[in-house]
Amino acid sequence: MKVAGFRAAALAAGLRYKDRLDLGLIVSDGPAAAAGVFTQNRVQAAPVLWSKEKPTKGPVRAILVNSGQANACTGPDGLDAARRSALSASQALGCGPDEILLASTGVIGQALNVSGIEKAMPELASGLDEKNLPLVAQAMMTTDTKPKIVKAQGEIQGRCFTVVGLAKGSGMICPNMATMLSFILTDAVVTAGLLQDILGRAVAKTFNRVTVDGDTSTNDCVLALAGGRAGNPALTDRGSLGRAGFEDVMTTVMAELARMIAADGEGATKLVRLAVTGAADDSQAEAAAKTVANSPLVKTAWFGQDPNWGRIMGALGRSGAEFDPEGVNILVDNAPLVKDGQDADHEAEAASVMRQAEFSLSIDLGAGLGRAEVLTCDLSLDYVRINADYRS
Amino acid sequence: MKVAGFRAAALAAGLRYKDRLDLGLIVSDGPAAAAGVFTQNRVQAAPVLWSKEKPTKGPVRAILVNSGQANACTGPDGLDAARRSALSASQALGCGPDEILLASTGVIGQALNVSGIEKAMPELASGLDEKNLPLVAQAMMTTDTKPKIVKAQGEIQGRCFTVVGLAKGSGMICPNMATMLSFILTDAVVTAGLLQDILGRAVAKTFNRVTVDGDTSTNDCVLALAGGRAGNPALTDRGSLGRAGFEDVMTTVMAELARMIAADGEGATKLVRLAVTGAADDSQAEAAAKTVANSPLVKTAWFGQDPNWGRIMGALGRSGAEFDPEGVNILVDNAPLVKDGQDADHEAEAASVMRQAEFSLSIDLGAGLGRAEVLTCDLSLDYVRINADYRS
Repeated sequence: MKVAGFRAAALAAGLRYKDRLDLGLIVSDGPAAAAGVFTQNRVQAAPVLWSKEKPTKGPVRAILVNSGQANACTGPDGLDAARRSALSASQALGCGPDEILLASTGVIGQALNVSGIEKAMPELASGLDEKNLPLVAQAMMTTDTKPKIVKAQGEIQGRCFTVVGLAKGSGMICPNMATMLSFILTDAVVTAGLLQDILGRAVAKTFNRVTVDGDTSTNDCVLALAGGRAGNPALTDRGSLGRAGFEDVMTTVMAELARMIAADGEGATKLVRLAVTGAADDSQAEAAAKTVANSPLVKTAWFGQDPNWGRIMGALGRSGAEFDPEGVNILVDNAPLVKDGQDADHEAEAASVMRQAEFSLSIDLGAGLGRAEVLTCDLSLDYVRINADYRS
Repeated sequence: MKVAGFRAAALAAGLRYKDRLDLGLIVSDGPAAAAGVFTQNRVQAAPVLWSKEKPTKGPVRAILVNSGQANACTGPDGLDAARRSALSASQALGCGPDEILLASTGVIGQALNVSGIEKAMPELASGLDEKNLPLVAQAMMTTDTKPKIVKAQGEIQGRCFTVVGLAKGSGMICPNMATMLSFILTDAVVTAGLLQDILGRAVAKTFNRVTVDGDTSTNDCVLALAGGRAGNPALTDRGSLGRAGFEDVMTTVMAELARMIAADGEGATKLVRLAVTGAADDSQAEAAAKTVANSPLVKTAWFGQDPNWGRIMGALGRSGAEFDPEGVNILVDNAPLVKDGQDADHEAEAASVMRQAEFSLSIDLGAGLGRAEVLTCDLSLDYVRINADYRS
C-alpha cells in the first residue's frame, strides 16, 4: 500500500499509553500541492487552527499526526504546543514549519505531550519508508478496531497514477459525533486549487454522507497531498483532460474509507445504508434520513435485530419532512417492512435481513422527488461500554 | 390520592400480556370541562385523532386508556377500533361516545385489541371507585418502573380545590423519544377555554422542558378535566380571582410529574437538570441545551460518572449557538468543570458530584442573556437492553 513520492513512519511515543503506535509522519519527497476540509465546529482544536490556512499559502511537505490528545480546548498553550510540534518535524525534515500540516485525535482538553513528540522525532524521521503508510493508519486509531487504508489507481492521458487514502473514525454511532481524520495521497500532478475543488466535492459525496454536513467534532479534517511523481500533464482546472477520471478515483477511495468508518462505528454490529426517496425536496429527505439515522430507539432496534418499524415512522413524523403517513413505504433490502404506512406483513423476512451485518433501509415518503442517503450503524451495549469507560 | 367528583378503575384485560394492569378508566360524576395538548408528530395515533378535537366541542365524561398497543399506523381499521372502544365505554357509562377521550401507549403498528376492551368493559365500569386513580397510573405503564401520580391543593376565594395528575413516560433518554401520557384532574370550577389556556402554558413550563417542543411521539397527549365539585366561583378568564393560584397548583403537579418521567427514563441512573445561560438569545440557549442533552457521547459519560467535559464543548460547538469557546464556563452543581473554555482543574470534586443520582449542569456561554433549561438523564447499558428487547 504505497504511492510514489511519499514515505511514512510511525512509532509508539508514549504520548498517552505505552507500547501503542501514537505518532505518525507522512512526507512528500518534494513540495506537494495540498488541500484540506476542516471541522465546521465552533470549537476548533489547535492542530485545525494551525493547518486550515496552510494549503492555500503554498506547497506542503508533510503531515504529522498523533493520537492520545486532541489538543482541543487547550487555549494559547495548545496553539504553542502545535507550533512546537510542527517546528520539530520541520527541523528533522529540513523544511519550514509552515510546510507541516498537523492533525490530532484523542481526549479533548488535555495538553499535547509535545516533549514526547520532540523526543521521538529523530527516530521517527529516520524510519521514513514508502512501505510504512499502513503504520500511520494504525498510529491514528483511538477506539477504532481496524486501521483504514485504501488504494486505487487510474490513468491520465496515458500516465498511471495512484491514490492512497488513510482514515480514522469510530465514534460514529450517531453520525454527528465523528472524530474523523483522513489523509488522501496521490502521485498525480494536480494544482492545489483544483485539488481543493475536487476534495470538497468528494467529501460531500463520501464522508459527509456519514457525518452529515456541519455536525463535526473539534478535530475533524481531511487533508489531500498531490506529490506529482506520476508525471501526467498537470490537471489545473475542471476542463483538464483526465480530471473526471482522477476525481472518480479520489471519490472511490474516500467512499470506501467512509464505509469502513461507518462499519467500524463504536460498538457497531450493523452497517446500515439508509436511503430516503420521495421527499418533497432533497433537504427534507436529508432531515428525514438524519432523524432516523440518529434515533436511539431505531438504532437499538437494529442492534436487537428487531423490525420494529413503528420507531422509524415516529422518527420520520418528527423530522420536519412533509408527507402523508399513508404514503410511506419502507423496505429492508428487498423485504417489505411498511406498505402504505402500515405493517407490510413480511416480518419474518425482514427479521432475517436484519440478522445480516449489513443491510439497506429504503424509505419512500411518496411526497416528491427529493432524495438523500446516509451510512450509519446500530447502537449497541458495547457503544455504551466504550463511551462510559473511554477515559479510564 | 383522590379528587372529588372523579372515580376510576383499572384491570388486567390481557390486551397484550396476561396478569398485568393494562386498561384504565377515569370517570367524572358529571360533565367536566376538558382541555388537551397533543403530539405535534406528523404521524398521529388513532386515539389522538379521536380525542384531539373533543375538548373544544363540549364537556367530557371519561378517559379510557390502555397500554400494550399504541393503535398508531393502523389506518382506517385503527380509527374504527378507537371508535368502538369509545362506544363500549359510553354504553357502560350511559353517555355519548363523543364524551369519551381515548389514550393508548404500546407498540406502534399493531391492531388494538378492541374485543378485549369490550369484553372487559362491564367489569371495569362496575369497579369504579374514587380510590382507584393509582391503579390507572399503573395500567398506563409500559417500560416505566414506577407509577407516576401527584396531588396538590389550593384555595380559590375560600373554597379548597384539589388537582391530581397521572403520567406515564419512560422512553425518555433522548428527550425527543418520549411516549408520554398525562391526565390532570381537578374539582375546581374552570371553563374549558381557560383550562386549555392554563394547560398550554403549564405544558410549556413542565413536560416540554423534558420532551422539547415538537419532538413528540405518535401518541403523546396531556388531558385535563375539571369536574367542578369544589364549588368555587367559576374561573372563566385570566382575570378571574384565584386564577393565578390555580395555575400555580396545576403547574406544580405537572412539574413534579415531568421530574418523575425524566428520573424514570429508560435505564436512567442519573437525572440531570441542564441549564444554559449567557446565550445570544433564548432560542440559541435552547439549541445548545438540546444538543448537549441529546448527545450520546455526553450521556454515556454521565453514565460512566466521568467529568469528560470535552464532549460537552464538542456538542456546544456544533449546536449552532454563537459563542467564543474561551468565554464558556461550566459547573456540575457547584464544582467548576470548565473555566474560560479550558479545564477548571476540579476534576475530583466534579466526579464526586456526578456519583450522585441527581445533579445540575450549568453552562454559561458568556455571549448574552439567553437562557433555557431541560431535564434529562444518562444513556446506560439498560437503555440499550430495554430497547433492543422491547417487543420480545
